[in-house]
Amino acid sequence: MAANSRFAVAIHILTAIAHMSRCAPRKVLSESGLVRCKYLAGSVGTHPVVVRRMVAQFTRAGLIISHQGKGGGVELARPSEKITLCDIYIAVDEGDIFAFNPNTANPKCLVSSKMARVLTPIFREVEQGVRERLRRTKLSDLVKMI
Amino acid sequence: MAANSRFAVAIHILTAIAHMSRCAPRKVLSESGLVRCKYLAGSVGTHPVVVRRMVAQFTRAGLIISHQGKGGGVELARPSEKITLCDIYIAVDEGDIFAFNPNTANPKCLVSSKMARVLTPIFREVEQGVRERLRRTKLSDLVKMI
Repeated sequence: MAANSRFAVAIHILTAIAHMSRCAPRKVLSESGLVRCKYLAGSVGTHPVVVRRMVAQFTRAGLIISHQGKGGGVELARPSEKITLCDIYIAVDEGDIFAFNPNTANPKCLVSSKMARVLTPIFREVEQGVRERLRRTKLSDLVKMI
Repeated sequence: MAANSRFAVAIHILTAIAHMSRCAPRKVLSESGLVRCKYLAGSVGTHPVVVRRMVAQFTRAGLIISHQGKGGGVELARPSEKITLCDIYIAVDEGDIFAFNPNTANPKCLVSSKMARVLTPIFREVEQGVRERLRRTKLSDLVKMI
């Protein structure tokens, strides 16, 4: 539904941080060995501002540490073995897979007044299923495949 | 991700058609016993045009039959026991749950050039998991809960 590429971009950025901090040529890293945002933007193929916004989101979610100023850059806040795709999914914070009908329920209509209650357990199961699948893949698994 | 309510609205419309064609008061149905679109709009809480657009989508997907003119309206194309939430999900046709990074891969970057290939099996499994869960619920199950 409304396929959203922000999650793919988020995974890409974090995989790149994990990969580059180990294997990147000298110029990609700052003097302190941190990954520079402009190289992440070059990898994703997007504007550095888009990357910086997402980096801020990851920082708030505790997935990365961002160092400002000369020699600054980003690094993972914990080993890639301890970051799952579900952590990234939650950090991107785009809401659940399926949303309810945003229109006010019609109290005169039996279907309308019961619809949200009927759909709640189904949508919850879908969401749990997606998160369980994402929890099974670690960022380190992706790095190994690069 | 980018929670989308079109699926919930679609389920609502089809549940309403299934429910109303059996239990609705006389005025909701046309002379031929078909459900009138304006009553569906009243149930969903949206403009009839939105409902008609979705009805056209369901007709193309073979889920309902739409009869034009005086005495016209809509009816399910097959029993509600033979329509699953997955059929509705496919009919709404919003694309997969997760989309890939739409930007062109950077061939000079190892992460960028491999990202789509790394993510393909994971996104495919997520999609299959969602569809499998949706396939387990029939429209008739929802109608029974109303």
